[in-house]
Amino acid sequence: MRIAVIGLGLIGGSLLRALAAAGHDVVGFDADPETRLLARKAGFRVAGSVRETVAGSAVAALAVPLQVLPEVVADLYGYDGLVTDVTSVKGPVRHLLEGRRFVGGHPMAGKETSGFAAAEVGLFSGCAWVLCLEPDETDLGDWLLLAGMFTGMGARVVPATAAEHDTAVARISHVPHLFAAVLAQQLGGSPLAGALAAGSFRDGTRVAATRAELTAAMCGGNRDAVRAELGRLMGELTTMAAALDHPEPVKALVPLLRPASELRRAWPPAPGAAEKITARIDRLLELGRSGGWVTSVNGTDLVGMRPESGRIVP
Amino acid sequence: MRIAVIGLGLIGGSLLRALAAAGHDVVGFDADPETRLLARKAGFRVAGSVRETVAGSAVAALAVPLQVLPEVVADLYGYDGLVTDVTSVKGPVRHLLEGRRFVGGHPMAGKETSGFAAAEVGLFSGCAWVLCLEPDETDLGDWLLLAGMFTGMGARVVPATAAEHDTAVARISHVPHLFAAVLAQQLGGSPLAGALAAGSFRDGTRVAATRAELTAAMCGGNRDAVRAELGRLMGELTTMAAALDHPEPVKALVPLLRPASELRRAWPPAPGAAEKITARIDRLLELGRSGGWVTSVNGTDLVGMRPESGRIVP
Repeated sequence: MRIAVIGLGLIGGSLLRALAAAGHDVVGFDADPETRLLARKAGFRVAGSVRETVAGSAVAALAVPLQVLPEVVADLYGYDGLVTDVTSVKGPVRHLLEGRRFVGGHPMAGKETSGFAAAEVGLFSGCAWVLCLEPDETDLGDWLLLAGMFTGMGARVVPATAAEHDTAVARISHVPHLFAAVLAQQLGGSPLAGALAAGSFRDGTRVAATRAELTAAMCGGNRDAVRAELGRLMGELTTMAAALDHPEPVKALVPLLRPASELRRAWPPAPGAAEKITARIDRLLELGRSGGWVTSVNGTDLVGMRPESGRIVP
Repeated sequence: MRIAVIGLGLIGGSLLRALAAAGHDVVGFDADPETRLLARKAGFRVAGSVRETVAGSAVAALAVPLQVLPEVVADLYGYDGLVTDVTSVKGPVRHLLEGRRFVGGHPMAGKETSGFAAAEVGLFSGCAWVLCLEPDETDLGDWLLLAGMFTGMGARVVPATAAEHDTAVARISHVPHLFAAVLAQQLGGSPLAGALAAGSFRDGTRVAATRAELTAAMCGGNRDAVRAELGRLMGELTTMAAALDHPEPVKALVPLLRPASELRRAWPPAPGAAEKITARIDRLLELGRSGGWVTSVNGTDLVGMRPESGRIVP
């Protein structure tokens, strides 16, 4: 079975390497001629166009940024195999690919460097790879094919609907980027604060150093979920501000802060024992909602895991 | 010159060790008999009460939590030497010590463990130690005495008014703790988010694991400055939310995110060359406001440093 990888940056390049290492027949393409040359020099088969790459492939993995995805999808004209992607927002991509054999994906992997030169065969080992499932829409066979491919590379495949994914990443990545930016901005005009800043500031603002264009694309691409979560958290901050105005602010703050302290100390949860998972969309979505993931796929025999307590909520 | 250290936890215990190592005559006290025993076993002179500890000492360093400070200050009755403290809020302590020979301090040091057993002789080496200076109030001689003691232990002594200190720590520590708590709270009822959370979440919420009582005491103790900074940052988040509602959210977000990205990448700033500092309250406060600090004190000969560019604002 041949797999086409379109876009050979950090994620696409690592995917090409990992799939080849897992014994798959792979062919790659990148819009940049230098990147194509690099991949060829690394011993990979690289085609000259999107159409040429996907011709004869059973799966086309689109590893390009969100903003060029419509262009690449247009270039798929004529290809009727299975399509997946790796972008960080799943609702808009689901609409873009409507009417195709499509299962959206999002590997939660990355590092500070980018490009094919930074690609690593082991980038996805142990990483969570969201693979979208929509009741009455996704073909379970297609989903299992991809789940087998990704678990075969060592990824933990997390089933979720596109909407569930977008809310979750708004919570754990996009809104944290906005919070970090707002905290880092305080350095402006305040060299004294910069001189006193230490651990809590360093960690709380680390991702604020991300290029503004990248953070904006991420948050803007997931605007609906980010807007909703940001609004909810601003409500929580308003409650904190009211506690500071309380006659006894320390007493008023403790119950507001305790759940966060307990939740954070319980994270990340320890994985429980391996369990058999029924290959059904509703059962898979339930696994994802409980914080679990699929670790191996053998036909329709699935093995999965979930957090030790079943739920990480204390 | 004898120095009394009241409170022998992580900070007080480390101070006792560091002052002794720097050749000072030190005597300690802690309200907890077991801690007193530990300190005696470590070879230190430990007195039986606050009054006995400060009797005959030139300096009394109060290394107790904010909430027991009034009690310890009441126990100083009769002592007329120089008093300093190490608490994380300086405005309320300044009022509490009104009418005494007092210079407030705050070493920006800490670690995950606490108690005398965790105390380290080198805890303050290279750390910023804010030493408060109020025009027309602080005795410059007293300030220089303490600045000499702390720089002698390897600390960078940062001059600031109590109000400047409280605003700066609200920015770089207290508000970041509230932001981390609000982000960590999102894990509640969302095991899927917990399964997907990675680097940006881990770092952005690290300090949310702090005991709720501690964070509440810190933020509640500095309520005025924390309230003001929190209000200002909520205004910035409102602007971010409006950008997400913009017809072109990515374009609207980029200019909002860019200053934070540049400021964070320029932090921490490289220190510039050593320079002679004039021993005058206004000159010292100017040094602190420019992000600088005092590195050594020899009578009234001061040497200091400031960030390489003079200002860290890009």
